[in-house]
Amino acid sequence: MADNITLAIDAMGGDHAPAMVVEGIALAAAERSNVNYLLFGNEQEIAPLLDRFPAAKAVSSVRHAEDVVLDDDKPAVALRGRRASSMRLAINAVNDGEADGIISAGNTGALMAMAKFVLKTLPGIDRPAIATYFPTQRSESVMLDLGANVECDANNLVQFAVMGEVFARNVLGLKNPSVGILNIGAEDLKGNSEVKEAATILQEAHLPIKFHGFVEGDDIGAGTVDVIVTDGFTGNVALKTAEGTAKLFSKSLKDALTSSPLAMLGAFIAKPALNRLKQHLDPRRYNGAMFLGLNGICIKSHGGTDAFGFAHALQVAHDLINKSINESIKEDFKKVQADIESHKQAAVGQ
Amino acid sequence: MADNITLAIDAMGGDHAPAMVVEGIALAAAERSNVNYLLFGNEQEIAPLLDRFPAAKAVSSVRHAEDVVLDDDKPAVALRGRRASSMRLAINAVNDGEADGIISAGNTGALMAMAKFVLKTLPGIDRPAIATYFPTQRSESVMLDLGANVECDANNLVQFAVMGEVFARNVLGLKNPSVGILNIGAEDLKGNSEVKEAATILQEAHLPIKFHGFVEGDDIGAGTVDVIVTDGFTGNVALKTAEGTAKLFSKSLKDALTSSPLAMLGAFIAKPALNRLKQHLDPRRYNGAMFLGLNGICIKSHGGTDAFGFAHALQVAHDLINKSINESIKEDFKKVQADIESHKQAAVGQ
Repeated sequence: MADNITLAIDAMGGDHAPAMVVEGIALAAAERSNVNYLLFGNEQEIAPLLDRFPAAKAVSSVRHAEDVVLDDDKPAVALRGRRASSMRLAINAVNDGEADGIISAGNTGALMAMAKFVLKTLPGIDRPAIATYFPTQRSESVMLDLGANVECDANNLVQFAVMGEVFARNVLGLKNPSVGILNIGAEDLKGNSEVKEAATILQEAHLPIKFHGFVEGDDIGAGTVDVIVTDGFTGNVALKTAEGTAKLFSKSLKDALTSSPLAMLGAFIAKPALNRLKQHLDPRRYNGAMFLGLNGICIKSHGGTDAFGFAHALQVAHDLINKSINESIKEDFKKVQADIESHKQAAVGQ
Repeated sequence: MADNITLAIDAMGGDHAPAMVVEGIALAAAERSNVNYLLFGNEQEIAPLLDRFPAAKAVSSVRHAEDVVLDDDKPAVALRGRRASSMRLAINAVNDGEADGIISAGNTGALMAMAKFVLKTLPGIDRPAIATYFPTQRSESVMLDLGANVECDANNLVQFAVMGEVFARNVLGLKNPSVGILNIGAEDLKGNSEVKEAATILQEAHLPIKFHGFVEGDDIGAGTVDVIVTDGFTGNVALKTAEGTAKLFSKSLKDALTSSPLAMLGAFIAKPALNRLKQHLDPRRYNGAMFLGLNGICIKSHGGTDAFGFAHALQVAHDLINKSINESIKEDFKKVQADIESHKQAAVGQ
């Protein structure tokens, strides 16, 4: 990977696109100078925005796209019908070697379907997973899958474990990251057959992975393990439940601190500390879900995010490219694949 | 139901039993005078505790039990081998008509297995569900199942919807409670076949239920619906994820408010408001998970709770008995069962 990075951007994806996209690029450009951006989208809409943000204009080129993927497009329909869309052309740019990664704040299902079709999966990976990292009581953890695969078999979960571990080690910079499978009890006897079989494979195969065993929902916030492996249905519910609980707590705190003149005075005095807290738990700082397992870097930004959040998603793409995450996943998979295969047979035969 | 209520208590279940059980009864007795308690457990351990809490002693009788269910007993093993345990004898007391409900802070799986075996399910209910209610941005909601059934078919989910709605109407006192099925997207096309089929039945059958459709994880804290229906695996993960996130937030807030002398001063001035917030979100106030669908009231207290939390679980049992929840579930089920059956055939045939 060259020192100079080129990112392909779906400039039309997201509730506040393309304005927040261009402003996000301006914020990111202020942070690092070695990145160029290929903006795919409506030229007439994007050009005046670039004039308003010269920092973005200096590092961007625009590629006109006639079409856009809509939020309610079904993945299969978008895949067949939106070949001239900003999202599809941006993905193509990665496949053509023009860009090192693609970022979109558009339709998640369509992005996954198109990226999988165009970029294909890495050798040994049956299905890509959506992953994100988030704050915990200890530091930061990564969880996958967050919704790409509603149903997963044991083999999928084991592959997620390998990819998550590579991410935690290479991108989060953890020495010997621990991996847990999300379940409804720490005991071996609980859970569905998929998680039990995946745990058996991870326990018995001699993978270079620190497998912790099962974890429960409250271990996510506690930071009990560095990598949490789960199917896309459970992971999506868990992530959104955490977001909803954080919002409930924030709102309750705000209500409490504006409930009386005395409370308002206390909040005013404690404001610097409260602002640091707000900043630490700001969901925009964790924006940018990674599609791990694809033969190309693909990042999904939250659709409702603003320029600050979008700039963070750009940062995630940058980190994954810089740390050559896909090279590492490929290498690690080559090492463990035979061992996984043999234990897969054993686990199923039990 | 008579005005006087008798509750059977597994006095040996829970990390701090039997001390917190007896103290919990003393707290509950101070609140209401028309409840008597049958304490099942080790007489030698319980007697001196009752001497320390005369308020509990005045309303309690002790029934000696030789055995206890251990935390790591497998449900099937406890069911066969622990017939002389405090838990089993307390459940028997409900079946024998000696008590109106049973409360235990012991092994959840064993409690469910024994309660199901002894009390049986209500007519029309295939499987009981674990339910609890919790604070939301709007008010309070109830969610079920929280772990009794790792895998649920559409029919189970529809039954949970009926039971949850009865609870919300009769015990939470809501006029026309709304019901949602937990999924990974609000669109009809998302999710696994079980949730889609359950939604079809609830949409097309003309049940007297306000069915909202699908909800996502963040709708739990938002309070988008009054009743959240899900399988036991997803529900357990969601509930514990919410607990873990609340703990993360509490700890981060505490850290922020003790991070500097100024922050500490602000927190001191805002203390009354912060205490009210703490009280509002205190998990002990929501202690007491209900086993809905059994032919008898059975409440599971959190194993790690204290006397205050246990007193709240007693209160939940009291509320369910007082509102004749099982009579209402039976009546409602009689009304809707034929309609559910006919639409079940239709949904499967689609």
